[in-house]
Parts: sequence; structure tokens; C-alpha cells
Amino acid sequence: MGLVLLWAGRRAPAMLLGMFGYQCNATDGKARLGRLRTPHGEVETPMFMPVGTAGSVKGVTPDQLVAAGARMILGNTYHLMLRPGAQTVARLGGLHRVMAWDGPILTDSGGYQIFSLAHMRKLSADGVTFQSHIDGSAVELTPAKAVLIQRLLGADVIMQLDECPPGQADRDTVAAAVERSARWAKLCREAWLAKRGQEPFTCEPCHSAQGSYQALFGIQQGGVHADLRAASAAALVELDLPGYAVGGVSVGEGHEALRDVLDATDGQLPHDRPRYLMGVGEPRDIIAAVVRGIDMFDCVLPTRNGRNAQAFTWQGRVRLRNARHAEDAAPVDETCDCYTCRHYSRGVLRHLFMAKEMLGPTLVTIHNLHFFSTLMIAIRQAISAGTLQADAEGWLAAIYDNDDTDDPESALDQ
Amino acid sequence: MGLVLLWAGRRAPAMLLGMFGYQCNATDGKARLGRLRTPHGEVETPMFMPVGTAGSVKGVTPDQLVAAGARMILGNTYHLMLRPGAQTVARLGGLHRVMAWDGPILTDSGGYQIFSLAHMRKLSADGVTFQSHIDGSAVELTPAKAVLIQRLLGADVIMQLDECPPGQADRDTVAAAVERSARWAKLCREAWLAKRGQEPFTCEPCHSAQGSYQALFGIQQGGVHADLRAASAAALVELDLPGYAVGGVSVGEGHEALRDVLDATDGQLPHDRPRYLMGVGEPRDIIAAVVRGIDMFDCVLPTRNGRNAQAFTWQGRVRLRNARHAEDAAPVDETCDCYTCRHYSRGVLRHLFMAKEMLGPTLVTIHNLHFFSTLMIAIRQAISAGTLQADAEGWLAAIYDNDDTDDPESALDQ
Repeated sequence: MGLVLLWAGRRAPAMLLGMFGYQCNATDGKARLGRLRTPHGEVETPMFMPVGTAGSVKGVTPDQLVAAGARMILGNTYHLMLRPGAQTVARLGGLHRVMAWDGPILTDSGGYQIFSLAHMRKLSADGVTFQSHIDGSAVELTPAKAVLIQRLLGADVIMQLDECPPGQADRDTVAAAVERSARWAKLCREAWLAKRGQEPFTCEPCHSAQGSYQALFGIQQGGVHADLRAASAAALVELDLPGYAVGGVSVGEGHEALRDVLDATDGQLPHDRPRYLMGVGEPRDIIAAVVRGIDMFDCVLPTRNGRNAQAFTWQGRVRLRNARHAEDAAPVDETCDCYTCRHYSRGVLRHLFMAKEMLGPTLVTIHNLHFFSTLMIAIRQAISAGTLQADAEGWLAAIYDNDDTDDPESALDQ
Repeated sequence: MGLVLLWAGRRAPAMLLGMFGYQCNATDGKARLGRLRTPHGEVETPMFMPVGTAGSVKGVTPDQLVAAGARMILGNTYHLMLRPGAQTVARLGGLHRVMAWDGPILTDSGGYQIFSLAHMRKLSADGVTFQSHIDGSAVELTPAKAVLIQRLLGADVIMQLDECPPGQADRDTVAAAVERSARWAKLCREAWLAKRGQEPFTCEPCHSAQGSYQALFGIQQGGVHADLRAASAAALVELDLPGYAVGGVSVGEGHEALRDVLDATDGQLPHDRPRYLMGVGEPRDIIAAVVRGIDMFDCVLPTRNGRNAQAFTWQGRVRLRNARHAEDAAPVDETCDCYTCRHYSRGVLRHLFMAKEMLGPTLVTIHNLHFFSTLMIAIRQAISAGTLQADAEGWLAAIYDNDDTDDPESALDQ
């Protein structure tokens, strides 16, 4: 009876079979259909995580997130450590409580934002010192501190501190970043193992001992250099971590370079661990990466573009501020059953943006998140049916041949 | 069988018994417990309408509005006629479709905003010309045009065009406004009767012939002058309109003046019609007005203050930006069961405002709308029990003795 009850709960398998794990259930070429088990429930892979930068996926409530199909979300350590601060998040019950989200959460380590957002970086073998973009104060982040902060936040998956050089960095810079990131991975692992099993607080939404297990992922660097990628992967695999991320491929290399990197790193990351491509979200990049064996994605694209009135559809992107939508009583996508498409027309959405009504960004964000969930469902179904390559060609032709936007690439960084 | 099915629908009584009506079911002193019947359903009174200025109650979806207890909402003709325009609203399916709201809607006539927002007003006996605050173009509004525009919008209750002088206006100005508003009421009624029964479009959310009946309300003016109020009421009552509003008492007179005006106008408006106090929303003003026989209210207070991090509670207002809430894991109101209080702490809400996250304004707006709905439910229950005076004294002491704000009055016009 007790066993039956335990199994009936959504977190029961994680408790009985281990707090974290990845299981691959089917393949289609190198594409993998699997499940990620976390203390806050299981998630089917390949999957996409909406980004909740500073403790909130901008403009949408957790109920709206779930309705839009989100199952696991991401929080940014960089933003949260500066405001409200990791200690404050812990005192408020941890990141799950702060985000009112009882599903799995992943936090990045702060590395990416430090190398892209912060001013006055000073890099050493031990860590990085930077100036807060909020109050200008000097902040130091070390591998151990990155783990400690993420422990206070309490996410299910935490990331090592890494150095993420820009896409146009020269080979020497990338090589140094690979070496430094490998050393930091080792230090992160030591801090993680030292804290493992300790319980800093109880996770309020699920009443489980959250923080008692967090999965630490390593991050492969190496830019577009196959040998550096290989060296990075080898150093990480030696650490036997619960999961591995491919980093440094969403910093401006473009679609071709992304495919080249993933082709070059083929086989470098272990088959029995989840593989996470950080910061990648353009549908064609997601599909290209799934085809090359990636399981997890995150990107600000659906939320940021949603706030800019740009909607994703299976027939290409739609710029809702365009005057031709002014009296269009049709929804963004006739085939979409998201809240926005069930209730609002293109004309109304355009009006909400022209009138600067907060509801416009919220509604198009909901639609875009639903599109990304639907894309991942379609991808999983195609892997299951063994038809991913053929299906994906059809999707990509429809999406990119009809694009309403002037320059799809530029939209990435709006 | 057909009859049973008709009665089962929420709009069946309105269709069978007449498209619009007010019924008083109980009284407690002058306070009235009643029901307002409209083509889009019935609403219990006294009731409060959230304001959906430009086609959206700022930051909240219709689902969130319903969950927060809203049953009837208000749209601003002034804003909608300028953007996206009444014809565009009609082409997009009418205001119910634009707001994705299948409950009753009331639109004001635009008069209030013209006299408070617009520049370069030119007033004549026939109407008013003003400069659009959006593109600077000259716009003319006449009584007939105000009715035509509201017909295109398609609300259930429409308001006459009136002149609303500022609170500090001298007696001559107020007397002229009373005279002009009475003449405009007559012209609005003529335009309304000429169009009655015609169907400009079908209401998409409810598939009923919306616009086939709209209830026209007259607006009493007269400032703080009892004789002018009496003259205004007499002119309106002669027109035998479906409902009457008390105008010009939310323009800075203060709580005492509001009570004096309502005491002075006691008995001037007919007992068998709904009475609507325009723009009033401070809880003590709502209670004072209900005690004096008012049935309907609208105000931007819950939404505007929500966007400014100010939460209404039964223990007074709470300024959520205050540093003392930073690590407070308790909800805004322990006794509140709104979405926000069930999922978020004061500390999290403060963080969302400090980080300028859109979700902060949305969540506190939801809480405030829920507070106003709960206040109106409590008022209706007290009228039903015959205990309004005593109950209200307790509520007001708790609300205003504990107020967290420096100056409650100033918050009205933030």
C-alpha cells in the first residue's frame, strides 16, 4: 500500500530509483527520445526550457507556463545572485518557491552573463571578479562559490562555472578558456561532492528535501576547434558528472558553425548522460542539434521575441506590429490551440502592442512558448516514429520560406 | 425541452424577460441588494467594474479577471475611438471580442477623458472638439457621435456624452455643465432610440445579436451644489433612461464632499433603475456610497495601484517596495485566497518590482482586483443580513487604521 502510494506521486520514481537520471528510450539516427528524472519530476527529452532570468519567466504566471507546455525552466544565477541575492532566495524558500514553480529548474553558473553582460571583468586561475551591472559593486565568483550560490537557489540541475569566450575569439583565447573551464569543473565537483546530501532548506512547493540532491553538469568549451572540443570533453568525462552541456555555440557563430561543432564533437560526450546545448533556441538550430544527439535546450527567443511582437508559427515568423494585421480578425496561427490563439486575433494583438498594453507581450510570449513546446512534442513524436529527418525538412521549409521578418538572424539578438 | 435548455443558459433570463433590467431584492437602510440583467449575463449589485482602458484591463487576461472575481468590466470610449478606432473594433468583432470578455461591458462616453486628458478643447452647444493625445489630430465628439461610436464598440451599457467640470470649478461653470449635459442627454437618447433594434454585427464570443440592445445611462452633474444636482436629475429622469449615473464626484472633492453630494441627491434618482457612481473606488467611498443607495462602481485604483506595488488588504494598504518586505515569506494577506497570495510571498513580489519584472504589476493587480471583488461580496452579504453599517465600521477601522502608506489620499491619483 505504501509502495503504491509512493509510486502514484509524480516524484516517487525519482525517490525510489535515485534523485536524478537520464534514460534513452528510442533513437532515430543520433536523435534520442528519453526521460530526465529530477527531484521535481520527470521531463521527456528532447525538451526546451523557457528562461526565467531574474526569478520570473517575463510576463507569464506558472499556470500560464504549464498551460503553454513548459515542464522545466531555467533561472540565471548571475541575475539572482545580484538581486535579490542567493541568501534572500534561500530565506524566501528557494528558487522553486520564488518562481512558484514545482517542476524541475536548472540554474546556469553565471559564467555566460559575466562574460557577456558584466563590466570590468578580472579573470584569474581561481575565478572571476566583475562589477555588478546593478550597483557597480565588485563581485567575485569562484567555482566553489558558484556551487554554493546554486545550492542556496536550490535548482534540480546546476552548472559548473565556465569561461565562455566570444564567438570571434582567437584560438589561443579559446584554448585558455578550455583549460580554465576544465580546472573550474574539477573545483565545482569538489564543492558539489562536499555539500551533497546536506539539506540547506526544505523545498516549500513540494515539501521534499530539495537541495539534498542537485545534479551538477559540466560545460564543454572549445569554440569551433574540434581538437579543443575533444580536450574539453575528455577532461569533463573524467569527472563522471550527471550531465554535460555544450557551451559557447550560441555566441554568434551561426547555423553552419553550430552544425560543424556538433558534428566534430560527435561521440565525445557519454551516451548514458543527458546532453544540453546552452542558449540555443532558433527552431532550425534545435532541430539540427536534436539530429546530432542533443537532449536539452534553453533560449530567450520565445519570450524576448514575444515581448517584441514577433510570433513563431509553423508558417514562419509573424511581425504583429505590421500594419497589414490591423483589421485581421484571424488568430496568429489558425492551427494553434494556445490561450492567445483561442482568444485573440492578430488585429487585437497588434492594437495591444501599438497601445503599449502589457497584455500584448504576455499573450505573444504565451503563444511562442506554446509553439516551442509543440515543436518539441513534434520532434519527440518524429523520433518515436523514426521519421525525424523527413519531417524536419518539411517543417523547416514551411517555417523559413514563409518568414514574415526581414532578417531572421537579427531577431535572435533583439 | 427547448424552454428548459434556454433557461439553462446564463443569458436565457435576459432574452426571455427583456435584454436589460435592474431588480432590487433586499435593502438595508438605503443600501440595495440587486441584480443587473444585460445581454451578456446578470451581475449582482452592488458591484465594482475593473477598468479596461484601451481594450485590456492592464496586465491581466480575461481568465485571470474572472478568477479574481470580476463580472462586468469597463472600456474607455475616448481611448478606443482614438486607437484602434471604433470602426476597427467593430471589424475585429466588437469590444467583447477585442477584450476576449463574454460578460457584460460598460463603455463611458469619452466626456471624462476629454475634460481631463485632451488638449485644446473647444466646447459648443453641439459637442466638443479636442486634440488627440496620440497624434495631435482634431477630433469632434457630439452626443449622436458618442452613441454611434459606443454602438460600434458594442458594450451592454453605454453612457451619454456629458461635460464633467473639475472639482474646483465655480458655480457658474458647474451650472453651465449641468445645462449642457442635460441637452446632450436628450440628443444621446434620440440617437440611441433611432438605432435601437438594429444589429451592426453579431457578438462573436456569445454568438448573440449584440448591439441589438444597449442600455443608455444618463449622467447627473452639479458638483457639490444640491440645487444643481436636483435640476440635473430632474432633466434626466424626464428622459426615462434604463439607468442613471452620478458624475463629477471623483475629481478631487474628497470623502466628505462625496458623502454630502450623495446625501443631497438622496431620492432624486428613481428607485427602479440602477445607480452608478462613476470613477469611485476608494473602499471607504464605495461603502459610503452603497450606504446611500449606489449599485455600481468603477475605478482604476486596484489596477493602477497594483502596477505601483501597492496592495489593498483588510488590514490596510501595503507598499510592497518597502525594504521591510525583502525577506518576508508571508503572502500579502494571510486571509486572501487569490492566485497571488496562494503562490507568492511579499518578499518575492518586492523582488519582482525591484527587478522591474512585468509579473510584479500583474500579480498585485490580480490581488487588488480580488480584494475589490471580496469587498463587494462582503457588502452584499452584509446588506442581506441587515448588518452593513456595523460591519462596515469594523472594516473601515481595520483598513484605514493600519494603512502602510504615508498618505492614503495621494495614492488615489498616482
